[in-house]
Amino acid sequence: MTSKKNTQIIFNKRPVGVPDKDCFRIEETDIPELLEGQVLVEVHYLSVDPYMRGRMNDRKSYIAPFQVGEVLTGGAVGKIVASKDQALKEGDYVMGMMGWENFAAVAAKGLTKVNPDLAPISTSLGILGMPGLTAYFGLLEIGKPKEKETVVVSGAAGAVGTIVGQIAKIKGCRVVGIAGSDEKIDYLKNELGFDEGINYKTSQNLRADLKAACPNGVDVYFENVGGEISDAVITLINNHARIPLCGQIADYNSTEMPVGPRWQSYLLTRMALLQGFLVGQFSDKYGEGIKQLAAWLKEGKLKNKENIVEGIEQTPDAFLGLFKGENIGKQLVKIK
Amino acid sequence: MTSKKNTQIIFNKRPVGVPDKDCFRIEETDIPELLEGQVLVEVHYLSVDPYMRGRMNDRKSYIAPFQVGEVLTGGAVGKIVASKDQALKEGDYVMGMMGWENFAAVAAKGLTKVNPDLAPISTSLGILGMPGLTAYFGLLEIGKPKEKETVVVSGAAGAVGTIVGQIAKIKGCRVVGIAGSDEKIDYLKNELGFDEGINYKTSQNLRADLKAACPNGVDVYFENVGGEISDAVITLINNHARIPLCGQIADYNSTEMPVGPRWQSYLLTRMALLQGFLVGQFSDKYGEGIKQLAAWLKEGKLKNKENIVEGIEQTPDAFLGLFKGENIGKQLVKIK
Repeated sequence: MTSKKNTQIIFNKRPVGVPDKDCFRIEETDIPELLEGQVLVEVHYLSVDPYMRGRMNDRKSYIAPFQVGEVLTGGAVGKIVASKDQALKEGDYVMGMMGWENFAAVAAKGLTKVNPDLAPISTSLGILGMPGLTAYFGLLEIGKPKEKETVVVSGAAGAVGTIVGQIAKIKGCRVVGIAGSDEKIDYLKNELGFDEGINYKTSQNLRADLKAACPNGVDVYFENVGGEISDAVITLINNHARIPLCGQIADYNSTEMPVGPRWQSYLLTRMALLQGFLVGQFSDKYGEGIKQLAAWLKEGKLKNKENIVEGIEQTPDAFLGLFKGENIGKQLVKIK
Repeated sequence: MTSKKNTQIIFNKRPVGVPDKDCFRIEETDIPELLEGQVLVEVHYLSVDPYMRGRMNDRKSYIAPFQVGEVLTGGAVGKIVASKDQALKEGDYVMGMMGWENFAAVAAKGLTKVNPDLAPISTSLGILGMPGLTAYFGLLEIGKPKEKETVVVSGAAGAVGTIVGQIAKIKGCRVVGIAGSDEKIDYLKNELGFDEGINYKTSQNLRADLKAACPNGVDVYFENVGGEISDAVITLINNHARIPLCGQIADYNSTEMPVGPRWQSYLLTRMALLQGFLVGQFSDKYGEGIKQLAAWLKEGKLKNKENIVEGIEQTPDAFLGLFKGENIGKQLVKIK
């Protein structure tokens, strides 16, 4: 089938607190044999995402934990080079959960076909994939922004945040992004059209800076980070504010339950809604979401921002970089 | 008009932390003169409610703060003894915001007529009034309990909690109440039909006791108290749980922002909804709510529980008792 070898990134040990490179090891293996119903995918792009940190803990959650000694898995896209399935054939491009490896043997029924002529295949992991759908449904179904309202997004320069802010602009809102570098803030304001951006790492008084950026208060807070950034935003919410709760990256590496102010009284007196969500709960509407996102992308209303590193051995660093705030836009690893 | 004197409870000073009797003083005054559009109400029942603690702070909120030196005001019901209004006349019973005093001069347009033949007039301050409507709309519009689901209510023996649990039983749910004495737990289980009750003051492990009482997890948590009770319940919520956020009595007397575990990750991974509300946001549906509550009351499906003390001079103690957990059901003061 091919004489090439397969490079895999193995989950070497569970992290305690912030993960480091010792959590990963690289192994060379043979190309896997296919079982009936599987296809062999030559992987082109791997996605690294903050939620994967949760899978590194040995704890029951909405998705099973990674097992030490096994290859890590995540969103990926590539080309089928061999098939033992009726529906998918050699040459097809497919997206889905795959190992962090050059060649993945995957059950065909878990994969989605990707049309490489519609958009670059990498978009199936970003703006037309999980992060795009997360932004789309979280903002529109839970945040329900109305024209002229103020939308604040934290983690604004990330894969989800960049899309949330742009959709809010399409909906006619005032958009304020919170991110962790001046380069990110420049990008949000000058490339993506955000009205204001706040660098939380250099702000002397985050609440005061937010208040200045949101003279009419906060109607929607798209919450990606948690921690002290959220504490500041919550104090500025308007009556009937909506808070789609998408991520808590500030706490993902905590070894103990983090503590902070009990700000339920703000939610109570302002009749505000806080709703946790996972993109999968909207799976029956993915088609609608992708169609709209692709249309906005084609019309130039949405800009696609990817941060791509090359080489499968770079994958652990790309993942670890998410927690250092290194990426602007969707972080991908190109391995073919 | 009448030769009687008027006894008033004056807001004597703002509390710092837990209020005490020094926050109140009693004054004898003349019966107030009526302005055009006002009526003079001989007050029969005064309502004392936890939310009034917030009005004792000099802080902007959804309702204006009390002013030191002025008569305290709250929900009350009584009989009109003089009128300078076209619509309301002597002999009518009315409910609304009135001073803590025997005779209140009130703008007629802020009052609601009460029919004393339908139900005892005190119910207009309890099961057919603000607490009843709070329970009704908070549970049904936000909690949306479905048959066989598990509903947990904190502050379960209070004015709102007793009604929440009974409505949840009408809807076919498993109902678990959390309250602060064995007497209250007995009442909830044996008189109101709650499935389980937990005395948080004697529980050695609240989370373990809750887990045992909720073998299928928690689908709706009607949140009246905040603090460590909520911390325990939140860890047991099911996917798509709903949390109507009605009160935070554990924190009302805090002098600093209370801190506690950041449990947003539970809301996120379980796709749960937390929604603050004030009963006033449902005011356009009050008629529907009162009609249904009155029907259930008449059918014997809802039991009305009032805790009545007599004498206007008892009002401060009745109010202070709310924070000591002294009342079962709606706390009222009968002053006529």
